Amino acid sequence: MSIETAIAELAPRFGERLSRAEAVRAQHGADEAHHAPHPPDAVIWPESTAEVAEIARTCSAHGCPIVAWGAGTSLEGHVIPVRGGISLDMSRMDRLLEVHAEDMDVVIQPGITRKRLNEELRATGLFFPVDPGADASLGGMAATRASGTCAVRYGTMREAVLALEVVLADGRVIRTGTRARKSSAGYDLTRLFVGSEGTLGIITELTLRLHGQPEAISAATCAFGRLEDAVQTVIETIQMGVPVARIELLDPLTIRGFNGYSGYDMPELPTLFLEFHGSEASVAEQAETVGAIAGENGGRGFDWTREPEARNRLWAARHSAYYAQQSLRPGARGYVTDVCVPISRLAEAIAETEADLAESPLMAPLVGHVGDGNFHLSILIDPEDPAEIAEAARLAGRINERALRLGGTVTGEHGVGLGKRKYMAAEHGEAWGLMGEIKAVLDPAGILNPGKIVPGN
Amino acid sequence: MSIETAIAELAPRFGERLSRAEAVRAQHGADEAHHAPHPPDAVIWPESTAEVAEIARTCSAHGCPIVAWGAGTSLEGHVIPVRGGISLDMSRMDRLLEVHAEDMDVVIQPGITRKRLNEELRATGLFFPVDPGADASLGGMAATRASGTCAVRYGTMREAVLALEVVLADGRVIRTGTRARKSSAGYDLTRLFVGSEGTLGIITELTLRLHGQPEAISAATCAFGRLEDAVQTVIETIQMGVPVARIELLDPLTIRGFNGYSGYDMPELPTLFLEFHGSEASVAEQAETVGAIAGENGGRGFDWTREPEARNRLWAARHSAYYAQQSLRPGARGYVTDVCVPISRLAEAIAETEADLAESPLMAPLVGHVGDGNFHLSILIDPEDPAEIAEAARLAGRINERALRLGGTVTGEHGVGLGKRKYMAAEHGEAWGLMGEIKAVLDPAGILNPGKIVPGN
Ligand SMILES: Cc1cc2nc3c(=O)[nH]c(=O)nc-3n(C[C@H](O)[C@H](O)[C@H](O)COP(=O)(O)OP(=O)(O)OC[C@H]3O[C@@H](n4cnc5c(N)ncnc54)[C@H](O)[C@@H]3O)c2cc1C
Ligand SMILES: Cc1cc2nc3c(=O)[nH]c(=O)nc-3n(C[C@H](O)[C@H](O)[C@H](O)COP(=O)(O)OP(=O)(O)OC[C@H]3O[C@@H](n4cnc5c(N)ncnc54)[C@H](O)[C@@H]3O)c2cc1C
Repeated sequence: MSIETAIAELAPRFGERLSRAEAVRAQHGADEAHHAPHPPDAVIWPESTAEVAEIARTCSAHGCPIVAWGAGTSLEGHVIPVRGGISLDMSRMDRLLEVHAEDMDVVIQPGITRKRLNEELRATGLFFPVDPGADASLGGMAATRASGTCAVRYGTMREAVLALEVVLADGRVIRTGTRARKSSAGYDLTRLFVGSEGTLGIITELTLRLHGQPEAISAATCAFGRLEDAVQTVIETIQMGVPVARIELLDPLTIRGFNGYSGYDMPELPTLFLEFHGSEASVAEQAETVGAIAGENGGRGFDWTREPEARNRLWAARHSAYYAQQSLRPGARGYVTDVCVPISRLAEAIAETEADLAESPLMAPLVGHVGDGNFHLSILIDPEDPAEIAEAARLAGRINERALRLGGTVTGEHGVGLGKRKYMAAEHGEAWGLMGEIKAVLDPAGILNPGKIVPGN
Repeated sequence: MSIETAIAELAPRFGERLSRAEAVRAQHGADEAHHAPHPPDAVIWPESTAEVAEIARTCSAHGCPIVAWGAGTSLEGHVIPVRGGISLDMSRMDRLLEVHAEDMDVVIQPGITRKRLNEELRATGLFFPVDPGADASLGGMAATRASGTCAVRYGTMREAVLALEVVLADGRVIRTGTRARKSSAGYDLTRLFVGSEGTLGIITELTLRLHGQPEAISAATCAFGRLEDAVQTVIETIQMGVPVARIELLDPLTIRGFNGYSGYDMPELPTLFLEFHGSEASVAEQAETVGAIAGENGGRGFDWTREPEARNRLWAARHSAYYAQQSLRPGARGYVTDVCVPISRLAEAIAETEADLAESPLMAPLVGHVGDGNFHLSILIDPEDPAEIAEAARLAGRINERALRLGGTVTGEHGVGLGKRKYMAAEHGEAWGLMGEIKAVLDPAGILNPGKIVPGN
């Protein structure tokens, strides 16, 4: 078999860094979410670009699939090797290569995780702002075009990546972009690889934009009687140009989850969590402005604080949302769906979703990076019950179709993986075919994460 | 001849909107800069996407080149139909289609110009911030990935474009992106077309991000004894996270040009022009912060004002820089070259450039969007003198090679056109070949702006 031939060729070369152990394969055959697992035939831990290129050449020659593995935190089945082959675990390529403090950029290997990167940057006065909550690898974050809570102010991985080194399917190593902040020198290959989920090439090095650590940070919470009032507060805040660093919506169910899971005692109401970055004067001004907007929209008790402990507690809660939500139904797993709509349609998108849920037997708490019009539903299912899975799929289908109808996208940040591929034709029309044509040029044998993103293969 | 066949087929269809008049062809055969002109065989003014698709199908069938024409303000020979064929003048597709004030976005046709767009938006409280000075068309700006003075705060066309409608070479019409602020739904085709200079498709509709008009605006100027002190002021300003809206460097020659051309009376020293956007309190705070940084770096007389007239006068001067510079040598034309480097290398890049110029017979004033590490030299030549053209090319070559050596790019914003194609291999290495492979998929017959960007054709 061609996969076996490739593995046989690579095994002596990689020794203990190639594993066929069942537990290792199982671990690399599943993600954090509800998708059916499928193990790779082997896992390899490369330690250099040259090794990745060598693996690509061998796999190309034998038609053996390669699925890059960052931290395995993606939620749509991205890392599941549906055609078997080799999982390329990038966790040993985790070095910080260069910090250019004056230019506010950093050159790293893909396996470094977001938290470690920020720890290593702490002393420089700089930080990397893209924050999906999970401690994802930067290579995986680039590959999914990740964003998260800070995107409203600092942008997503689309804006954060300045340059890449990429190993193509045939083993060629290319560089896209430079350390210059902007360029008009030809096609934007950097942005083509960002979000390509390991289907066009393996990212072996990234140059990322950093930001200065804010002089002052304050955080705030505000509860609302009605969800539309919370959303209206968000719209007005963005329109006023208040440079909020984070603005998150949590529904009453999620708040109930926090209260149980993290021992909070918050009113079970639609709630905004906010953060402001800037000078002392500016964070005070921002908080006052948003406080006033919230007040006019019926917000109850806009509390803000500069106290780091209270702030950390707040974001620790926010980052535990996925698990807090699951705790609402012991033994359940979250069938997560992520959509993003123009902000003017957000209240409508959420209200219609709530109406769907009122008629469903399933419970589904909601959180959203609402400054971007992005929200996630975590439909709580018994992963062993096919009827519940089918009902979750039905609900998710309605949410995704609604997002398209309202001018939005079926995934704001989680990516396509296996779960969102069925909506690609509806979202992109003929452009989906063009994605397939581009894939065919870069990966003619279809060995890079097959079964994902593009039509057919 | 195949071009003639295509024109013969299209002529009855477009009537007076197809012209073969010599003056019209000559006008569409040259740009604002020094590149040798070459006329198209005909010019067509399409009025709809369907018409563009029809032209593409006909030209595809007969192998007739199509070169899109926006406002013809590009500076690297982009619009010059080096293989003849049809210039597609987009100026009649200039409608504003939808304004979504709540979502802060707008849907437009490509022929609308930047100034008209902002006039039409004025009453909404929103504005479109990408400002290349020239009154370019938005289609042309997207196609060159334009930026300009406000990019340091608001980003470039890369960040500004949310979605596109594009006619492909074979007449297929695709849509890329949605009105959602962010998406991870597959390959970023929007960013692939942004910056593709009419070589991958014709942009027939754009959805653009807008920003709220700032509550307050102030402007400032500051002169420095030494250029490195001005650059150090910029670095510290950016690192402090001051959200400057514009931060421009002008060299003593350019100031001399303003003094003569616009009747100013500024000291002929390296000078920064700045603008601050925000609340009243914030613009005051920003100006004070930058004033203090400039003072520590030896800045002389940091003057700032909220007075609209003084501000408009300042930016009118800045926007006339190209012409003010040319006035330094009557009858001369600017051989413009645009590079962008990491900001830490900017002082070095400029100092070495000045050393080159000291040994050259030619005069070459410099301006820069220095917050991004981007600067332009306008080498003043007698366009009829081959020796001067050769000397300008030699100087430009050194500047561009230096930008690459310092980790930068050979074009921060003007694009590749004819002038920068010779550096593509040096900047991109093997990735340049990949651009060619992508072009071949989208435009197999090579009819879209042939002779630009990619290798070979
Ligand atoms: C609790 C929780 C909360 C989350 N919240 C958010 C959120 O707010 N925002 C958000 O955007 N995401 C969120 N996610 C999803 C997840 O964190 C992101 O998708 C993240 O970007 C995945 O990174 P990873 O390193 O885990 O990648 P993996 O899951 O390992 O891989 C993801 C994809 O990238 C590919 N890949 C990985 N490394 C490379 C490489 N070096 N080269 C090429 N391809 C590669 C893989 O093949 C796969 O297709 C959340 C996940 C969890 C579990
Ligand atoms: C005085 C002066 C100052 C300038 N300053 C700056 C600056 O600060 N920053 C900056 O970025 N640029 C600057 N420029 C350059 C120029 O303004 C930009 O390149 C601008 O984006 C060109 O827009 P245009 O409409 O004139 O395009 P054109 O010159 O008409 O065309 C440019 C390219 O885009 C293609 N194109 C045009 N329309 C379409 C379409 N609808 N679909 C597909 N392709 C299309 C053309 O084929 C061509 O390749 C300056 C120019 C001048 C004259």
